[in-house]
Amino acid sequence: LSEFDDIARLFRPLSFGAPEALGLMDDAAQIPSRPGFDLVVTKDALVEGVHFLSTDPPALVGKKLIRVNLSDLAAKGARPYGCFLAVAFPAAWDAAMREAFAEGLGEDLRRFGLALFGGDTVFTPGPFTASLTALGWVEAGRMVLRSGARPGDILMVSGGIGDGALGLKAALGEIDSPYLLGRYQAPEPRLDLAEVIKAQASASADVSDGLVADAGHIAEASGIGLELDLDAVPLSSEAQAWLDRQPDREAAMVGLATGGDDYQIVCTAPEGRAAALQAAGFTAIGRAVEGAGVGVRHRGRRLEIARGGWVHG
Amino acid sequence: LSEFDDIARLFRPLSFGAPEALGLMDDAAQIPSRPGFDLVVTKDALVEGVHFLSTDPPALVGKKLIRVNLSDLAAKGARPYGCFLAVAFPAAWDAAMREAFAEGLGEDLRRFGLALFGGDTVFTPGPFTASLTALGWVEAGRMVLRSGARPGDILMVSGGIGDGALGLKAALGEIDSPYLLGRYQAPEPRLDLAEVIKAQASASADVSDGLVADAGHIAEASGIGLELDLDAVPLSSEAQAWLDRQPDREAAMVGLATGGDDYQIVCTAPEGRAAALQAAGFTAIGRAVEGAGVGVRHRGRRLEIARGGWVHG
Repeated sequence: LSEFDDIARLFRPLSFGAPEALGLMDDAAQIPSRPGFDLVVTKDALVEGVHFLSTDPPALVGKKLIRVNLSDLAAKGARPYGCFLAVAFPAAWDAAMREAFAEGLGEDLRRFGLALFGGDTVFTPGPFTASLTALGWVEAGRMVLRSGARPGDILMVSGGIGDGALGLKAALGEIDSPYLLGRYQAPEPRLDLAEVIKAQASASADVSDGLVADAGHIAEASGIGLELDLDAVPLSSEAQAWLDRQPDREAAMVGLATGGDDYQIVCTAPEGRAAALQAAGFTAIGRAVEGAGVGVRHRGRRLEIARGGWVHG
Repeated sequence: LSEFDDIARLFRPLSFGAPEALGLMDDAAQIPSRPGFDLVVTKDALVEGVHFLSTDPPALVGKKLIRVNLSDLAAKGARPYGCFLAVAFPAAWDAAMREAFAEGLGEDLRRFGLALFGGDTVFTPGPFTASLTALGWVEAGRMVLRSGARPGDILMVSGGIGDGALGLKAALGEIDSPYLLGRYQAPEPRLDLAEVIKAQASASADVSDGLVADAGHIAEASGIGLELDLDAVPLSSEAQAWLDRQPDREAAMVGLATGGDDYQIVCTAPEGRAAALQAAGFTAIGRAVEGAGVGVRHRGRRLEIARGGWVHG
């Protein structure tokens, strides 16, 4: 068995005949320019035992790899186009597991409308490790940056925040919730929001490091401060039920707002544009101000949160 | 210490202020279209203990990661533009090692004229693992494919073949040769040949899996056969000296022609264009014929080589 068998059998079909991919039979892909459009490119990696659990089904690992990257494209207002996969399989991942991984990958490529353009398949003595380079298109100059927030802008987020952190607890067996488990194993990239973000948002980022940390990235890139009201942060009914069971609600709410892996979108917009984002499902959670950093409030009190909470690898 | 410290301290300077990179402070890079040009994209990964030795200096690992990818761009006739890095650092790679890796990377980015546009920095419980997605430009429709060889074309290769396989022996202490060690640890991508390949070659691939295997890729993609004469294959003086010491010269020569990691270029060209490639440093080693596969000859005899020899991960 060699990398070529896997490439031919598992991955070649996932190019869906896209001319860019050259049947995955070349050294490189050939991507024609598309005048009037910019290519939006992101690259995120997953390591077994760090970004997913060894017990997670390989098909869901394939889906998660696609989705964490598409989440970035959604935040930028881009439409998915194609991707490049580098995957290092451990010896313990037998043919059936590699095939399941490719099947999960393929299902999501089809569902989200992108093709595999190329990459590299290798074997590793260590844990499963993979990176995806995802490409999207956006009209020239229209990518929504982290740096566009201005004082007075409304801070908004899509929900529900904290499902990623609680999903990890579900995956570890600490919470019994198929819904939350699914949010951790196969988060839903908010591509449904990409168009309205492009049309209305002044700055945008996906929530992968935690709401407070990712709002902090917008604040830093934009050179502004953000006031964030934890009471307004939208929660799923499962997260709300979990929160209601916690003895220290404030610490628990901080945990949800600093947990990672939500793959929701945090964005800002001038006051006159906020309504369109709210109509699309965003919730106002604060405001951009002169200054720096993220000021977090809960029940009217200002909280101190050390450097944006949990920073995931 | 978090990924953000490494990104800011080690990797941000490597964007060289390229507007595409947005200071490595965004979720994605923004790449403007360049009408009249195609983007050539390749992605190769390196795993510690598989593609380099644990004892290799981190700076050279950074350089090798750049060079194995630029080798693909060279084979396609493309000019380097930018790249995306995903790197998984083991805990054993302390700050000094991570810094040395970034320094090696940076030196080569500067030397070869490309900028870091984005990526992902994570930690791993396993071996060092990294992938680079390298982008280059080529005039629209001018990328040199593997699939363009036609019966009658001359088969050519740049030299020296086998230095990669012998370099591995040097790295393992089996051969004492600083030259060969350098060829393994930091191969030289043949970007000097990119222009002439683009102008003259009908098909081209880099020699990463071994000369016979990579010629086989051209044969397969082009739907032709290739006749390859081992006696004509260009060797470095170090490889020639090693070959002269071997009791079974034929087996040794097959080893050089099927070893990987040479990062030379194998290409084909119609007879009338071969002279320009030879003037640039290519050596004619055979011919394209009707049929399939690679027929290998040595001292007039036809050899049987199992499926292209050593297939590296």
